[in-house]
Amino acid sequence: MPMRPPAAIGMPFAEVDTPALVIDLDAFERNLERMADFAARTGIRVRPHAKTHKSPEIAKRQIALGAVGVCCQKVAEAEVLVAGGVGDVLISNEVAGAAKLDRLAALARQARIGVCADDIDNVAEIEAAAAKAGASVDVLVEIDVGGRRCGTAPGAPAARIAKRIAAAPNLNFAGLQAYHGSAQHVRDPAERKAQIAQAARYAGETLRALEAVGLEARIIAGGGTGTYENETASGVYNELQPGSYVFMDADYARNTGTDGGPFRTYEHALFVLATVMSTPVPERCILDAGLKAFAVDSGMPTPWKLPGAVYQRPSDEHGVLDVSACTEPPRRGAKVLLVPGHCDPTVNLHDWYAGVRGLGTAKAQVECLWPVAARGALF
Amino acid sequence: MPMRPPAAIGMPFAEVDTPALVIDLDAFERNLERMADFAARTGIRVRPHAKTHKSPEIAKRQIALGAVGVCCQKVAEAEVLVAGGVGDVLISNEVAGAAKLDRLAALARQARIGVCADDIDNVAEIEAAAAKAGASVDVLVEIDVGGRRCGTAPGAPAARIAKRIAAAPNLNFAGLQAYHGSAQHVRDPAERKAQIAQAARYAGETLRALEAVGLEARIIAGGGTGTYENETASGVYNELQPGSYVFMDADYARNTGTDGGPFRTYEHALFVLATVMSTPVPERCILDAGLKAFAVDSGMPTPWKLPGAVYQRPSDEHGVLDVSACTEPPRRGAKVLLVPGHCDPTVNLHDWYAGVRGLGTAKAQVECLWPVAARGALF
Repeated sequence: MPMRPPAAIGMPFAEVDTPALVIDLDAFERNLERMADFAARTGIRVRPHAKTHKSPEIAKRQIALGAVGVCCQKVAEAEVLVAGGVGDVLISNEVAGAAKLDRLAALARQARIGVCADDIDNVAEIEAAAAKAGASVDVLVEIDVGGRRCGTAPGAPAARIAKRIAAAPNLNFAGLQAYHGSAQHVRDPAERKAQIAQAARYAGETLRALEAVGLEARIIAGGGTGTYENETASGVYNELQPGSYVFMDADYARNTGTDGGPFRTYEHALFVLATVMSTPVPERCILDAGLKAFAVDSGMPTPWKLPGAVYQRPSDEHGVLDVSACTEPPRRGAKVLLVPGHCDPTVNLHDWYAGVRGLGTAKAQVECLWPVAARGALF
Repeated sequence: MPMRPPAAIGMPFAEVDTPALVIDLDAFERNLERMADFAARTGIRVRPHAKTHKSPEIAKRQIALGAVGVCCQKVAEAEVLVAGGVGDVLISNEVAGAAKLDRLAALARQARIGVCADDIDNVAEIEAAAAKAGASVDVLVEIDVGGRRCGTAPGAPAARIAKRIAAAPNLNFAGLQAYHGSAQHVRDPAERKAQIAQAARYAGETLRALEAVGLEARIIAGGGTGTYENETASGVYNELQPGSYVFMDADYARNTGTDGGPFRTYEHALFVLATVMSTPVPERCILDAGLKAFAVDSGMPTPWKLPGAVYQRPSDEHGVLDVSACTEPPRRGAKVLLVPGHCDPTVNLHDWYAGVRGLGTAKAQVECLWPVAARGALF
């Protein structure tokens, strides 16, 4: 039984049911345009990460503004994106297991599909699945550029895997995945810059090792919302994979921007709308949104335009709003917007986006309802 | 598009796709029986909390073993439970907003439905919805017994709300909700006992205030997996609401039991099965299960029967398994079981349970697939 949407199209914003995942469409569109402008200005390719939004509707809007395709992390996400009309998807991740690789190969007969590999045996598995399906799959070698997650060592070990890919009849060696995940949330811009400079050196070293074996990387990919300017400036990378810029969560807002001021290039465009369900004492409002409405791995959500209010102590279905420092605490039944601490896993908790036009004005109303189509796409 | 299940009924356990939410059916059934035995032995009613499992299949098994009904936290959860054949559901929570209350009243025409209130205006709203629907709704007054979440003050303020309920033609004053949430995970059993003794004093004080206005509480409800023995021993409570005992998560396993030893009354029966997708260096395995497969609000998942392995640094789709202290680290492609840190919000991330019979034996196989039917039931 699919979950009901929290709103209907055309509904005044005040009537949206809670907890609801709300997009401020005006801010969201400005965010999309800002990244597209950056790409146009610098000449770099952008392949936004769809793991943030999990929505073909949003992916298609990114592509319409110039993105070359999108990334995702799972075959099941790629299936949803392709079914929704996206023609070029890179799974910026390793895929293990024959069942998943068979699905990946089947998908590669419908759309341009890329995947990453950091292991020579894995390349053989991808080739076997692609051959069985009669499909052609792009494969990037993932190198560890400092994130200490997946990725082979840069240089010769990576070139060895690339050679195996290039030799496989149903695979295309497409380039390098050189994403530095942990650098994204480093607060200090000089430190982020230093980490990406090192990542670019690893990527450059790998390009030379590829050259030594007669291979060329068409794509040198990396960069997230926290560092994409650094990858661009490196002169090594040619494709960016930012995701969170579409929504901007509270955690990214804690970064210092490259100009030394707060990182405000992108606007908060994603909110959870919650209702005050109980006001047992004057200093405490209880919200109907807890661990099932917010991911709290990167900190608590931030109440929006409610000075003095602090969200704390979430349980499954409750959040405590400390309003002891609020001059006008919300009353029982009032609705409150909050900026999620971490947008990607928060989106994954919801089935619907309510896209609101004119948020913050008296005319605010629901313009669209988009399913979070790849929510729960784990496989 | 509903998410595919990770397995098929009859499939050998080794073939289950990942990340998958796995129930060890043998341990799970023993857990259900242990709580049923406790209820039979002590004569207390048990109304298990379905917010843990979100499954009518499991709720019906609990009721078949003697539970008087189940609890949940949201109208949408109650709708799923009633649609799945559960006839008695208490929403152990406040419900705010006319749209939700209309749905609650409609549901009360199909099943016995209770709800909590901690505010006199909220009682009027519930009555209005019930009257409009021609329904009869049980209402419990929630009192704050120390959890500092919802709940009116014990004693006379609670009795005043109860009087309002009793005077409403379409509402039945059903008793007191006196659940102490934050006591559940207090590690020291003496401290848990002291907190529940205080909660029982608040409940007793409220019972006397009710008596003074000529009212009687049919239900005095509270108790979770961490404290239900204390509520039972108090002599004040007559209905327990434990949820997590069916699955036992890693966080509850950190409690000290009433006997002074580790809390091992219930067995770990819920796991996430993950695949090692990358082994870039000998000391690190990368699992395909991160923030989209585990809730980490109560700590990291614990690798099961893999001594020395430590799960850390989850990102959306990855978890890093530090295997530097493992004598036999798993290889790429191997599958690993982990005990979630917090079962309720972890369950909420998955669409399916794969129920496995004989887990840990060579004959382990998938006996059932149950949908997490109330996953995402936020409203």
